[in-house]
Amino acid sequence: MKHSVRLYFDFISPYSYLALTQVEAFGEEHGIAWTVRPILYAAVLERRGLIGPAEEPVKREYTTRDIVRAADRLGVPLVGPPEHPFNSLAALRTVCVFQEDPQALHLAVRLSSLCWGEGQPLTHLETLIAAVNECGLPAAGLAERIASPDIKERLRANTDEALKAGVFGVPTFVWEGELFWGHDRMPHLADRLEGRMGSPEERGKAIAGRPRGLERKSASLRSESKPSASG
Amino acid sequence: MKHSVRLYFDFISPYSYLALTQVEAFGEEHGIAWTVRPILYAAVLERRGLIGPAEEPVKREYTTRDIVRAADRLGVPLVGPPEHPFNSLAALRTVCVFQEDPQALHLAVRLSSLCWGEGQPLTHLETLIAAVNECGLPAAGLAERIASPDIKERLRANTDEALKAGVFGVPTFVWEGELFWGHDRMPHLADRLEGRMGSPEERGKAIAGRPRGLERKSASLRSESKPSASG
Repeated sequence: MKHSVRLYFDFISPYSYLALTQVEAFGEEHGIAWTVRPILYAAVLERRGLIGPAEEPVKREYTTRDIVRAADRLGVPLVGPPEHPFNSLAALRTVCVFQEDPQALHLAVRLSSLCWGEGQPLTHLETLIAAVNECGLPAAGLAERIASPDIKERLRANTDEALKAGVFGVPTFVWEGELFWGHDRMPHLADRLEGRMGSPEERGKAIAGRPRGLERKSASLRSESKPSASG
Repeated sequence: MKHSVRLYFDFISPYSYLALTQVEAFGEEHGIAWTVRPILYAAVLERRGLIGPAEEPVKREYTTRDIVRAADRLGVPLVGPPEHPFNSLAALRTVCVFQEDPQALHLAVRLSSLCWGEGQPLTHLETLIAAVNECGLPAAGLAERIASPDIKERLRANTDEALKAGVFGVPTFVWEGELFWGHDRMPHLADRLEGRMGSPEERGKAIAGRPRGLERKSASLRSESKPSASG
C-alpha cells in the first residue's frame, strides 16, 4: 500500500520550487501516492493575517540568499523568474486542469523548474503550453480552460481545502492529517512515513496547551525582569 | 584561526533551544569562536512588523508539532516551559551579565535546557542562580545586577546590533556579515565555514533585485489569470 500524501504549493514560492525538485525521487523512495493541490499562497496569507517572506524588505533580502544556499545544497539550478512576485494564477490553474491526471505532479515540477530553474515567465501562455506538451498532456484550448469558471472554482476549492487542513504556508505536505511545512521538513515526513519517529500529536498538544505567561505588548525592553522569588 | 560567529537568540524561542543544544559540539567541530548575544525577540518582531510563530493560532499549533519532531530527530529532550510565551527578560539579562565570559555560551545552553528540556521556569530567580552556579560563575547579587541600568542597556544594545545586522528572527547566526536563520540552517553555516559552498551574495542580490510583477492586493482568487500572449 502506498502512502497517500497531499502536496499544497504555489509557483510564487521558491521553497515550493525547492520541494518540487525533490518530490519525484522522494515519492519513489518512500512509496508515495501524490495528490497534487495548487493553491493561491496570497489567499492563505490573507486569511491567516500573515505576511510572506518577500513582503518585509529585510526578510526578502535574507530569503534570496537562503534559497541560493539551499539550491546549492540540493544541487539544483536557481535562476528565478523575471519578475517577483508575479501573478501565478494562470500557471496554478494550468495544473488544476490536470490535477487528477497521473502526470499532474510532473507538470507541476516542470512548470516550477521552467520558472525558478530556467528563468521563464509563468505569466506567458507559451511557457504553460510548452510544459503541458512536454508532459504529453493535451494543450488544445488551454487559454479557454484556465479562464473557465470550473477551473477557477477548482483553485478556490484547493485553497479552501488547504486552509481547512491548517495550511499557513507553502509548500505543505499533508499525510494522515499531519502537516509538514517547507522543503526542509521532507526528512521529518520521511521519518514519519518509515515509522522511525512517533506521532508529535500528544506531546505537541501538551506543549501548545500551556497557559500564556505574557502578551507581547507587555514584553518590552523597558519592562522589569521581575523574577518571582528573592535571591 | 578560529571562525568568529555571533549567535543571537531568545529563550522564548524553541528553535533557539534546538540550536543551543547543538552549538557547543558544532563549535568544536568547525573551530568557532562564539560571540553570545541574547536579544529580545518581541522587540525584533515589533520593529520588523512581523508576528511570531506562536502568535497565529494555526501556526502555533503546527509549531509545537514541528519542534517535537525536530527534537526527536536531534535526540534531545523537549518538555517546554510551564507557561508560553513567558517573560524571558530576567534570563536574557542573566546571560548579558556574563556575555563576555568564556562560559557565556555554556550558560545560555544550560538556561535553555532547563527551560525547554526540563520544564523549569526561567521567570524564577532560583533557576537563574542555579544555572549561573553550575557554570562556575559568580551568582552573588544576581537579582540586583539584572535589574541594573547597565545590564538593561546591554540587552537593548544587543537587540539594536541584531537589528542592524538584519536579524528578523531567532536563532540567527552571523558569520562575516552573512546571516543564517534557524537551527535548521546550521548545515548551511557549516558548508560556508568549510568552504564547501560559495557566497550567495551576488546571486541573491540578482534575484532580490528583480522587478515586482504584482502587489498582493491584486493577487486574489477573483483575479483574471491574464497570460500575456494568445494561444
